[in-house]
Amino acid sequence: MKKNQLNEISNLGEFALIDRLSKNFTITDKKLVKGIGDDAAVFEASKDNCFLVATDLLVEGIHFDLIYSPLKHLGYKAVAVNLSDIYAMNAKPKYITVSIAISKKFSVQALDLLYEGINLACERFDVELIGGDTTSSLSGLFINITVIGEAKKDEIVYRSTAKKNDLICVSGDLGAAYMGLQILEREKEVFMQDPQIQPDLQGYDYIIERQLKPEPRRDIINRLKEAGIKPNSMIDISDGLSSEVLHLCKQSNLGAVIYEDKIPINQQTAQAAEMFRLLPLIPALNGGEDYELLFTVPLSEKEKIERVQDVSIIGYMHEDSNKKLLIPVNGEEIELKALGW
Amino acid sequence: MKKNQLNEISNLGEFALIDRLSKNFTITDKKLVKGIGDDAAVFEASKDNCFLVATDLLVEGIHFDLIYSPLKHLGYKAVAVNLSDIYAMNAKPKYITVSIAISKKFSVQALDLLYEGINLACERFDVELIGGDTTSSLSGLFINITVIGEAKKDEIVYRSTAKKNDLICVSGDLGAAYMGLQILEREKEVFMQDPQIQPDLQGYDYIIERQLKPEPRRDIINRLKEAGIKPNSMIDISDGLSSEVLHLCKQSNLGAVIYEDKIPINQQTAQAAEMFRLLPLIPALNGGEDYELLFTVPLSEKEKIERVQDVSIIGYMHEDSNKKLLIPVNGEEIELKALGW
Repeated sequence: MKKNQLNEISNLGEFALIDRLSKNFTITDKKLVKGIGDDAAVFEASKDNCFLVATDLLVEGIHFDLIYSPLKHLGYKAVAVNLSDIYAMNAKPKYITVSIAISKKFSVQALDLLYEGINLACERFDVELIGGDTTSSLSGLFINITVIGEAKKDEIVYRSTAKKNDLICVSGDLGAAYMGLQILEREKEVFMQDPQIQPDLQGYDYIIERQLKPEPRRDIINRLKEAGIKPNSMIDISDGLSSEVLHLCKQSNLGAVIYEDKIPINQQTAQAAEMFRLLPLIPALNGGEDYELLFTVPLSEKEKIERVQDVSIIGYMHEDSNKKLLIPVNGEEIELKALGW
Repeated sequence: MKKNQLNEISNLGEFALIDRLSKNFTITDKKLVKGIGDDAAVFEASKDNCFLVATDLLVEGIHFDLIYSPLKHLGYKAVAVNLSDIYAMNAKPKYITVSIAISKKFSVQALDLLYEGINLACERFDVELIGGDTTSSLSGLFINITVIGEAKKDEIVYRSTAKKNDLICVSGDLGAAYMGLQILEREKEVFMQDPQIQPDLQGYDYIIERQLKPEPRRDIINRLKEAGIKPNSMIDISDGLSSEVLHLCKQSNLGAVIYEDKIPINQQTAQAAEMFRLLPLIPALNGGEDYELLFTVPLSEKEKIERVQDVSIIGYMHEDSNKKLLIPVNGEEIELKALGW
């Protein structure tokens, strides 16, 4: 087979690739409630209770750069991004397994730091490390974490169950992790040219922390519960707002309308974007790694949701599945598109 | 910190490393029956039923060489080694997640082949692919599979529950996968020197298949059930007989006596060992990757176990935890030692 006859994986894109690779797998198990296609898979533990499972692989040089990622932060982040998937199903994470492949450049002390971060996240979110695998790699560090969560069956929230006219809500603010990464990359460039120069990170502590040590939004899940709100649909924002809104649309067979001026953006994010000559909207829509929750609630819950701290209403689900629009403050409406990978 | 002050991971060894990294993690969850330290972790699904979880990471250049590992075989093997961990707990594998990191050298068609092998193993062993992660790597292929199994709580068999005078049994034969690897490595050397020369694998089909496409021993689990035998303890043989016998000893706080002439070795394994000027006993004791089951049964089950096809009685558990002996056909008894990693 000649090289030029082969499909390039990068041309296909991650989601098309997953569709292709999983298409021949048939699901027959009756206890499996949800397989591939949401933040986590769901299977029955008993009549009323389910377990959930999600997994994430972090690769040195692709997902993190050890020049500016402290190993303790990295361990914490590797757990956090997995927990985020479980919270996005309105479930409680319980157990993790940690597989790592490490090259010879790592000392035992380096691994200790990585596991300190893993431990910190486990303690903070009441999760137990119950297994794993530790092996060598020829180059670089690989961390694969699998998380198991639990929930009552009727409390689990999927991507596919948004209803028309649902309010689209988002926790926290968006685009910060991406702009934090840009700052870190800039300072790395400076450092590579002259290691004597100290990095200038002043004024960007918030967005840098959002990149290096994201917090999964257990607090939002708890506040929604306290407020008596169960979202109709939910997903976590790992690939940018646009991509995740489009997932909700596709899987719920609906459209969506998002208002630019409702999208929450932190001031540091906006400042950093300006410095890089970007509209702050760009990292918010396409930046990724925010690990905020995107969810929809019935219009009837409007007053309740407005009282939930750190949640913004940014638009609504539209009955026409062809309508996926961003309404700018000035100018004409724009079609929402997912960029990246 | 100077380089020479750092502990080298390779000096520590895999098991000491796992002990070190997991020592600060406290387990408080009441539904967790077994955490780190067996083939799989065990947690309660309901009063009588449990789920189990195990994970294995395979790394190109460390665990497999794509020069002689067909991708379809590799996909099958990646699943098989995980299922083996679940069977070793006397449980039934149910679900897997598959995380892969791939470099640019892989085409979509190559991934299709890998997933064909994964699918084949899933179909053969009634397991469902329910999730995963697909990402890039800067070099090489990484496959992390996590398997979830289920079992009645009272049917699960651990490493720590061997009893004194238990018969030590092993399924199949040992050392084949290691000798298969030696043959493949030899032919790779020849190929690297002259790509025109066709590999000479004749007469070694069995041991090569044992290396490239190991079969998890569901059949043995089923036969034991049919024979009405529940082992007192069990482990799968991934690192060689010696290492696994020592695990049973350590965790059950007992010793063991193994008879050299009872260790099952296939004729091809013996022939290949002879060709490489090795005693056939060496790959059987230390070779690894056999994925056979090592288990102990009460002496009272002797007649029953002798009738179970493809199982050999190779020794017994000794009440003195300091006695871990191999009894050779000729000569003095030798202390059992684990080599490698």
